[in-house]
Amino acid sequence: MAYRKTPAEISRLEAARDHLVVRATEVVAEVGWAQASVTAVADAAGIAAGSVYQHFPSKAALAVEVFRRAAGREVEVLGEVLHGPGDPVERLGRGTEVFARRALENRGLAYALLAAPAEPAVGAERLDFRRRYRALFAEVVREGIAAGALPPQNAEITAAALTGAIGEVLVDPLAVPDENATEALLADLTGTALRCAGAPAT
Amino acid sequence: MAYRKTPAEISRLEAARDHLVVRATEVVAEVGWAQASVTAVADAAGIAAGSVYQHFPSKAALAVEVFRRAAGREVEVLGEVLHGPGDPVERLGRGTEVFARRALENRGLAYALLAAPAEPAVGAERLDFRRRYRALFAEVVREGIAAGALPPQNAEITAAALTGAIGEVLVDPLAVPDENATEALLADLTGTALRCAGAPAT
Repeated sequence: MAYRKTPAEISRLEAARDHLVVRATEVVAEVGWAQASVTAVADAAGIAAGSVYQHFPSKAALAVEVFRRAAGREVEVLGEVLHGPGDPVERLGRGTEVFARRALENRGLAYALLAAPAEPAVGAERLDFRRRYRALFAEVVREGIAAGALPPQNAEITAAALTGAIGEVLVDPLAVPDENATEALLADLTGTALRCAGAPAT
Repeated sequence: MAYRKTPAEISRLEAARDHLVVRATEVVAEVGWAQASVTAVADAAGIAAGSVYQHFPSKAALAVEVFRRAAGREVEVLGEVLHGPGDPVERLGRGTEVFARRALENRGLAYALLAAPAEPAVGAERLDFRRRYRALFAEVVREGIAAGALPPQNAEITAAALTGAIGEVLVDPLAVPDENATEALLADLTGTALRCAGAPAT
Protein backbone atom coordinates (compact mmCIF):
# COMPACT_ATOMS: atom_id res chain seq x y z
CA MET A 1 0.00 0.00 0.00
CA ALA A 2 1.35 3.39 -1.02
CA TYR A 3 2.15 5.86 1.73
CA ARG A 4 -0.62 8.42 2.14
CA LYS A 5 -0.46 11.64 4.10
CA THR A 6 -2.72 11.85 7.14
CA PRO A 7 -5.21 14.77 7.33
CA ALA A 8 -3.03 16.34 10.02
CA GLU A 9 0.04 16.15 7.81
CA ILE A 10 -1.86 17.63 4.89
CA SER A 11 -3.12 20.58 6.88
CA ARG A 12 0.35 21.16 8.34
CA LEU A 13 1.79 21.21 4.81
CA GLU A 14 -0.91 23.58 3.60
CA ALA A 15 -0.31 25.96 6.49
CA ALA A 16 3.44 25.93 5.79
CA ARG A 17 2.80 26.59 2.09
CA ASP A 18 0.43 29.47 2.93
CA HIS A 19 2.97 30.99 5.28
CA LEU A 20 5.62 30.74 2.56
CA VAL A 21 3.39 32.46 -0.02
CA VAL A 22 2.52 35.26 2.41
CA ARG A 23 6.19 35.88 3.20
CA ALA A 24 7.18 35.62 -0.46
CA THR A 25 4.53 38.22 -1.33
CA GLU A 26 6.03 40.58 1.25
CA VAL A 27 9.50 40.05 -0.20
CA VAL A 28 8.26 40.70 -3.76
CA ALA A 29 6.47 43.87 -2.58
CA GLU A 30 9.67 45.07 -0.95
CA VAL A 31 12.40 44.15 -3.43
CA GLY A 32 10.64 43.15 -6.68
CA TRP A 33 10.63 39.92 -8.67
CA ALA A 34 14.27 39.99 -9.68
CA GLN A 35 15.61 40.26 -6.14
CA ALA A 36 13.10 37.88 -4.58
CA SER A 37 15.43 34.88 -4.71
CA VAL A 38 14.54 31.52 -3.22
CA THR A 39 17.10 32.24 -0.48
CA ALA A 40 15.57 35.63 0.34
CA VAL A 41 12.08 34.15 0.48
CA ALA A 42 13.19 31.17 2.55
CA ASP A 43 14.94 33.53 4.99
CA ALA A 44 11.78 35.62 5.31
CA ALA A 45 9.71 32.50 5.94
CA GLY A 46 12.25 31.16 8.46
CA ILE A 47 12.87 27.94 6.54
CA ALA A 48 15.81 26.42 4.66
CA ALA A 49 16.05 27.28 0.97
CA GLY A 50 15.70 23.59 0.13
CA SER A 51 12.36 23.47 1.95
CA VAL A 52 10.89 25.93 -0.54
CA TYR A 53 11.07 23.13 -3.11
CA GLN A 54 8.87 20.90 -0.94
CA HIS A 55 6.07 23.31 -1.82
CA PHE A 56 6.98 24.65 -5.25
CA PRO A 57 8.97 22.94 -7.98
CA SER A 58 10.67 26.18 -9.03
CA LYS A 59 11.07 29.87 -8.26
CA ALA A 60 8.78 30.57 -11.23
CA ALA A 61 6.02 28.39 -9.77
CA LEU A 62 6.23 30.26 -6.46
CA ALA A 63 6.19 33.60 -8.30
CA VAL A 64 3.08 32.53 -10.20
CA GLU A 65 1.34 31.61 -6.94
CA VAL A 66 2.31 34.97 -5.37
CA PHE A 67 0.95 36.74 -8.45
CA ARG A 68 -2.30 34.74 -8.56
CA ARG A 69 -3.20 35.29 -4.95
CA ALA A 70 -2.41 39.00 -4.90
CA ALA A 71 -3.93 39.78 -8.30
CA GLY A 72 -6.90 37.54 -7.52
CA ARG A 73 -7.65 39.62 -4.44
CA GLU A 74 -7.63 42.82 -6.54
CA VAL A 75 -9.96 41.33 -9.15
CA GLU A 76 -12.27 40.31 -6.33
CA VAL A 77 -12.33 43.78 -4.77
CA LEU A 78 -12.91 45.45 -8.14
CA GLY A 79 -15.72 43.00 -8.85
CA GLU A 80 -17.37 43.81 -5.52
CA VAL A 81 -17.33 47.54 -6.26
CA LEU A 82 -18.49 47.16 -9.87
CA HIS A 83 -21.33 44.87 -8.76
CA GLY A 84 -22.14 47.04 -5.74
CA PRO A 85 -24.69 49.78 -5.21
CA GLY A 86 -25.05 52.81 -7.46
CA ASP A 87 -25.72 53.41 -11.13
CA PRO A 88 -23.25 51.99 -13.68
CA VAL A 89 -21.36 55.27 -14.15
CA GLU A 90 -20.94 55.74 -10.39
CA ARG A 91 -19.73 52.16 -10.04
CA LEU A 92 -17.24 52.55 -12.88
CA GLY A 93 -15.83 55.70 -11.29
CA ARG A 94 -15.71 54.14 -7.84
CA GLY A 95 -14.17 50.90 -9.15
CA THR A 96 -11.40 52.86 -10.86
CA GLU A 97 -10.74 54.89 -7.75
CA VAL A 98 -10.75 51.94 -5.36
CA PHE A 99 -8.44 49.92 -7.62
CA ALA A 100 -5.99 52.81 -7.97
CA ARG A 101 -6.10 53.75 -4.28
CA ARG A 102 -5.35 50.20 -3.23
CA ALA A 103 -2.44 50.10 -5.66
CA LEU A 104 -1.03 53.37 -4.34
CA GLU A 105 -1.37 52.12 -0.75
CA ASN A 106 0.73 49.05 -1.54
CA ARG A 107 3.00 50.44 -4.22
CA GLY A 108 5.67 47.78 -4.21
CA LEU A 109 3.24 44.93 -4.69
CA ALA A 110 1.10 46.85 -7.19
CA TYR A 111 4.17 47.69 -9.29
CA ALA A 112 5.16 44.03 -9.27
CA LEU A 113 1.66 42.99 -10.33
CA LEU A 114 1.13 45.65 -13.00
CA ALA A 115 4.41 46.57 -14.56
CA ALA A 116 7.69 45.24 -13.23
CA PRO A 117 9.68 43.09 -15.63
CA ALA A 118 9.16 39.51 -14.50
CA GLU A 119 9.80 36.03 -15.75
CA PRO A 120 7.66 34.83 -18.66
CA ALA A 121 5.45 32.65 -16.42
CA VAL A 122 4.39 35.78 -14.52
CA GLY A 123 3.89 37.61 -17.82
CA ALA A 124 1.46 34.89 -18.89
CA GLU A 125 -0.49 35.31 -15.63
CA ARG A 126 -0.63 39.05 -16.23
CA LEU A 127 -2.32 38.51 -19.59
CA ASP A 128 -4.83 36.17 -17.94
CA PHE A 129 -5.69 38.61 -15.19
CA ARG A 130 -6.06 41.51 -17.58
CA ARG A 131 -8.68 39.42 -19.35
CA ARG A 132 -10.57 39.16 -16.05
CA TYR A 133 -10.42 42.92 -15.52
CA ARG A 134 -11.71 43.45 -19.03
CA ALA A 135 -14.66 41.13 -18.41
CA LEU A 136 -15.62 43.07 -15.27
CA PHE A 137 -15.41 46.45 -16.99
CA ALA A 138 -17.29 45.20 -20.06
CA GLU A 139 -20.20 44.22 -17.85
CA VAL A 140 -20.59 47.64 -16.23
CA VAL A 141 -20.12 49.44 -19.58
CA ARG A 142 -22.86 47.29 -21.12
CA GLU A 143 -25.14 48.12 -18.18
CA GLY A 144 -24.37 51.81 -18.66
CA ILE A 145 -25.24 51.63 -22.36
CA ALA A 146 -28.46 49.73 -21.62
CA ALA A 147 -29.43 52.34 -19.03
CA GLY A 148 -28.77 55.17 -21.49
CA ALA A 149 -26.08 56.58 -19.18
CA LEU A 150 -23.28 55.81 -21.67
CA PRO A 151 -23.39 56.33 -25.44
CA PRO A 152 -23.53 53.32 -27.80
CA GLN A 153 -20.05 51.79 -28.11
CA ASN A 154 -18.25 48.48 -28.38
CA ALA A 155 -18.19 47.55 -24.68
CA GLU A 156 -15.42 44.98 -25.14
CA ILE A 157 -13.12 47.56 -26.67
CA THR A 158 -13.91 50.17 -24.05
CA ALA A 159 -13.29 47.56 -21.34
CA ALA A 160 -9.89 46.70 -22.80
CA ALA A 161 -9.11 50.41 -23.10
CA LEU A 162 -10.04 50.97 -19.44
CA THR A 163 -7.91 48.04 -18.30
CA GLY A 164 -4.90 49.25 -20.26
CA ALA A 165 -5.42 52.90 -19.39
CA ILE A 166 -5.70 52.41 -15.64
CA GLY A 167 -2.65 50.15 -15.52
CA GLU A 168 -0.50 52.45 -17.60
CA VAL A 169 -1.50 55.61 -15.71
CA LEU A 170 -0.39 53.95 -12.48
CA VAL A 171 3.05 52.80 -13.67
CA ASP A 172 4.97 56.01 -12.99
CA PRO A 173 3.19 57.01 -9.76
CA LEU A 174 3.90 53.52 -8.42
CA ALA A 175 7.55 53.66 -9.41
CA VAL A 176 8.18 57.23 -8.26
CA PRO A 177 5.88 57.96 -5.31
CA ASP A 178 4.59 61.46 -4.64
CA GLU A 179 2.25 61.24 -1.65
CA ASN A 180 1.07 64.81 -2.12
CA ALA A 181 -0.17 64.08 -5.61
CA THR A 182 -2.33 61.08 -4.71
CA GLU A 183 -5.74 62.76 -4.53
CA ALA A 184 -5.20 64.78 -7.72
CA LEU A 185 -4.01 61.65 -9.50
CA LEU A 186 -7.06 59.68 -8.39
CA ALA A 187 -9.39 62.46 -9.55
CA ASP A 188 -7.63 62.75 -12.92
CA LEU A 189 -7.52 59.00 -13.45
CA THR A 190 -11.18 58.53 -12.56
CA GLY A 191 -12.13 61.43 -14.81
CA THR A 192 -10.14 59.95 -17.67
CA ALA A 193 -11.71 56.51 -17.21
CA LEU A 194 -15.21 57.97 -17.28
CA ARG A 195 -14.33 60.03 -20.35
CA CYS A 196 -13.05 56.87 -22.10
CA ALA A 197 -16.44 55.27 -21.51
CA GLY A 198 -18.18 58.39 -22.79
CA ALA A 199 -19.76 59.44 -19.50
CA PRO A 200 -20.86 63.11 -19.57
CA ALA A 201 -18.26 65.44 -17.99
CA THR A 202 -19.16 66.30 -14.40
CA MET B 1 50.51 47.58 -30.39
CA ALA B 2 47.06 46.17 -29.75
CA TYR B 3 45.25 44.54 -32.62
CA ARG B 4 42.70 46.88 -34.17
CA LYS B 5 40.00 45.98 -36.65
CA THR B 6 40.34 47.55 -40.10
CA PRO B 7 37.42 49.65 -41.41
CA ALA B 8 36.60 46.81 -43.82
CA GLU B 9 36.47 44.30 -40.98
CA ILE B 10 34.29 46.60 -38.92
CA SER B 11 31.78 47.12 -41.69
CA ARG B 12 31.74 43.38 -42.43
CA LEU B 13 30.98 42.69 -38.76
CA GLU B 14 28.25 45.34 -38.69
CA ALA B 15 26.62 43.90 -41.80
CA ALA B 16 26.69 40.40 -40.28
CA ARG B 17 25.19 41.74 -37.05
CA ASP B 18 22.46 43.57 -38.96
CA HIS B 19 21.64 40.46 -40.95
CA LEU B 20 21.42 38.48 -37.72
CA VAL B 21 19.04 41.00 -36.11
CA VAL B 22 16.81 41.08 -39.21
CA ARG B 23 16.58 37.27 -39.28
CA ALA B 24 16.06 37.10 -35.51
CA THR B 25 13.20 39.60 -35.81
CA GLU B 26 11.56 37.36 -38.43
CA VAL B 27 11.94 34.35 -36.15
CA VAL B 28 10.45 36.22 -33.18
CA ALA B 29 7.53 37.41 -35.36
CA GLU B 30 6.89 33.84 -36.44
CA VAL B 31 7.36 31.78 -33.27
CA GLY B 32 7.50 34.28 -30.38
CA TRP B 33 10.21 35.03 -27.81
CA ALA B 34 10.10 31.69 -26.03
CA GLN B 35 10.70 29.62 -29.15
CA ALA B 36 13.24 31.98 -30.72
CA SER B 37 16.25 30.03 -29.46
CA VAL B 38 19.80 30.93 -30.37
CA THR B 39 19.86 27.80 -32.55
CA ALA B 40 16.66 28.76 -34.38
CA VAL B 41 17.96 32.29 -34.96
CA ALA B 42 21.38 31.07 -36.09
CA ASP B 43 19.72 28.62 -38.52
CA ALA B 44 17.60 31.41 -39.95
CA ALA B 45 20.67 33.61 -40.37
CA GLY B 46 22.65 30.75 -41.92
CA ILE B 47 25.41 30.86 -39.29
CA ALA B 48 26.61 28.56 -36.53
CA ALA B 49 24.96 28.99 -33.13
CA GLY B 50 28.35 29.89 -31.65
CA SER B 51 28.71 32.78 -34.11
CA VAL B 52 25.66 34.48 -32.57
CA TYR B 53 27.82 35.10 -29.51
CA GLN B 54 30.36 37.03 -31.62
CA HIS B 55 27.69 39.69 -31.91
CA PHE B 56 25.65 39.38 -28.70
CA PRO B 57 26.80 38.18 -25.29
CA SER B 58 23.49 36.42 -24.59
CA LYS B 59 20.11 35.51 -26.01
CA ALA B 60 18.62 38.28 -23.85
CA ALA B 61 20.96 40.89 -25.41
CA LEU B 62 19.89 39.80 -28.89
CA ALA B 63 16.22 39.89 -27.85
CA VAL B 64 16.67 43.43 -26.51
CA GLU B 65 18.21 44.53 -29.82
CA VAL B 66 15.35 42.94 -31.78
CA PHE B 67 12.85 44.72 -29.54
CA ARG B 68 14.62 48.09 -29.75
CA ARG B 69 14.85 48.17 -33.50
CA ALA B 70 11.30 47.02 -34.14
CA ALA B 71 9.69 49.13 -31.41
CA GLY B 72 11.91 52.09 -32.36
CA ARG B 73 10.54 51.96 -35.89
CA GLU B 74 6.95 52.06 -34.56
CA VAL B 75 7.70 55.02 -32.29
CA GLU B 76 9.21 56.79 -35.30
CA VAL B 77 6.18 56.18 -37.51
CA LEU B 78 3.78 57.28 -34.79
CA GLY B 79 5.86 60.40 -34.24
CA GLU B 80 5.74 61.22 -37.94
CA VAL B 81 1.94 60.98 -38.02
CA LEU B 82 1.43 62.90 -34.75
CA HIS B 83 3.77 65.65 -35.98
CA GLY B 84 2.30 65.60 -39.48
CA PRO B 85 -0.36 67.72 -41.15
CA GLY B 86 -3.84 68.23 -39.71
CA ASP B 87 -5.28 69.59 -36.49
CA PRO B 88 -4.36 67.85 -33.21
CA VAL B 89 -7.56 65.78 -33.01
CA GLU B 90 -7.15 64.54 -36.59
CA ARG B 91 -3.54 63.65 -35.90
CA LEU B 92 -4.42 61.77 -32.73
CA GLY B 93 -7.06 59.76 -34.60
CA ARG B 94 -4.74 59.07 -37.52
CA GLY B 95 -1.82 58.17 -35.24
CA THR B 96 -3.97 55.64 -33.39
CA GLU B 97 -5.22 54.15 -36.63
CA VAL B 98 -1.80 53.95 -38.28
CA PHE B 99 -0.23 52.38 -35.20
CA ALA B 100 -3.00 49.78 -34.92
CA ARG B 101 -3.09 49.03 -38.65
CA ARG B 102 0.65 48.43 -38.75
CA ALA B 103 0.34 46.12 -35.75
CA LEU B 104 -2.49 44.15 -37.37
CA GLU B 105 -0.48 43.84 -40.59
CA ASN B 106 2.43 42.27 -38.72
CA ARG B 107 0.59 40.47 -35.96
CA GLY B 108 3.32 38.15 -34.82
CA LEU B 109 5.86 40.89 -34.32
CA ALA B 110 3.33 43.30 -32.82
CA TYR B 111 2.18 40.69 -30.32
CA ALA B 112 5.80 40.08 -29.33
CA LEU B 113 6.38 43.81 -28.89
CA LEU B 114 3.18 44.61 -27.02
CA ALA B 115 2.10 41.66 -24.98
CA ALA B 116 3.86 38.32 -25.24
CA PRO B 117 5.51 37.08 -22.06
CA ALA B 118 9.22 37.72 -22.50
CA GLU B 119 12.37 37.68 -20.46
CA PRO B 120 12.76 40.51 -17.92
CA ALA B 121 15.28 42.41 -20.10
CA VAL B 122 12.62 42.74 -22.79
CA GLY B 123 10.06 43.72 -20.15
CA ALA B 124 12.33 46.58 -19.11
CA GLU B 125 12.57 47.76 -22.74
CA ARG B 126 8.79 47.66 -22.99
CA LEU B 127 8.48 50.05 -20.05
CA ASP B 128 10.99 52.39 -21.70
CA PHE B 129 9.20 52.39 -25.02
CA ARG B 130 5.81 52.98 -23.45
CA ARG B 131 7.31 56.09 -21.91
CA ARG B 132 8.23 57.27 -25.41
CA TYR B 133 4.70 56.66 -26.67
CA ARG B 134 3.33 58.59 -23.72
CA ALA B 135 5.58 61.55 -24.50
CA LEU B 136 4.35 61.64 -28.12
CA PHE B 137 0.69 61.45 -27.12
CA ALA B 138 1.11 64.06 -24.38
CA GLU B 139 2.42 66.53 -26.94
CA VAL B 140 -0.56 66.23 -29.27
CA VAL B 141 -3.04 66.29 -26.36
CA ARG B 142 -1.45 69.50 -25.07
CA GLU B 143 -1.70 71.01 -28.55
CA GLY B 144 -5.36 70.00 -28.68
CA ILE B 145 -6.06 71.64 -25.33
CA ALA B 146 -4.20 74.81 -26.36
CA ALA B 147 -6.20 74.95 -29.60
CA GLY B 148 -9.47 74.54 -27.69
CA ALA B 149 -10.19 71.30 -29.57
CA LEU B 150 -9.86 69.19 -26.41
CA PRO B 151 -11.22 70.01 -22.95
CA PRO B 152 -8.85 70.95 -20.11
CA GLN B 153 -7.26 67.78 -18.71
CA ASN B 154 -4.00 66.41 -17.36
CA ALA B 155 -2.26 65.68 -20.67
CA GLU B 156 0.28 63.31 -19.08
CA ILE B 157 -2.46 61.14 -17.64
CA THR B 158 -4.45 61.12 -20.86
CA ALA B 159 -1.27 60.20 -22.74
CA ALA B 160 -0.60 57.28 -20.40
CA ALA B 161 -4.24 56.22 -20.72
CA LEU B 162 -4.00 56.30 -24.53
CA THR B 163 -0.79 54.28 -24.52
CA GLY B 164 -2.26 51.64 -22.22
CA ALA B 165 -5.64 51.62 -23.93
CA ILE B 166 -4.33 51.14 -27.47
CA GLY B 167 -1.94 48.38 -26.43
CA GLU B 168 -4.55 46.49 -24.44
CA VAL B 169 -7.25 46.76 -27.12
CA LEU B 170 -4.85 45.16 -29.60
CA VAL B 171 -3.83 42.18 -27.45
CA ASP B 172 -6.70 39.84 -28.33
CA PRO B 173 -7.04 40.81 -32.02
CA LEU B 174 -3.30 40.19 -32.41
CA ALA B 175 -3.48 36.82 -30.66
CA VAL B 176 -6.66 35.61 -32.36
CA PRO B 177 -6.80 37.17 -35.84
CA ASP B 178 -10.13 37.93 -37.51
CA GLU B 179 -9.36 39.59 -40.84
CA ASN B 180 -13.00 40.50 -41.42
CA ALA B 181 -13.16 42.52 -38.22
CA THR B 182 -10.13 44.73 -38.93
CA GLU B 183 -11.89 47.83 -40.22
CA ALA B 184 -14.55 47.78 -37.50
CA LEU B 185 -11.85 47.31 -34.88
CA LEU B 186 -9.83 50.24 -36.20
CA ALA B 187 -12.91 52.47 -36.21
CA ASP B 188 -13.87 51.44 -32.65
CA LEU B 189 -10.33 51.81 -31.35
CA THR B 190 -9.84 55.23 -32.92
CA GLY B 191 -13.24 56.36 -31.61
CA THR B 192 -12.34 55.13 -28.12
CA ALA B 193 -8.97 56.92 -28.20
CA LEU B 194 -10.58 60.20 -29.23
CA ARG B 195 -13.23 59.79 -26.53
CA CYS B 196 -10.49 59.20 -23.92
CA ALA B 197 -8.97 62.54 -24.91
CA GLY B 198 -12.38 64.21 -24.73
CA ALA B 199 -12.74 64.95 -28.45
CA PRO B 200 -16.35 65.66 -29.40
CA ALA B 201 -18.11 62.57 -30.80
CA THR B 202 -18.22 62.61 -34.61
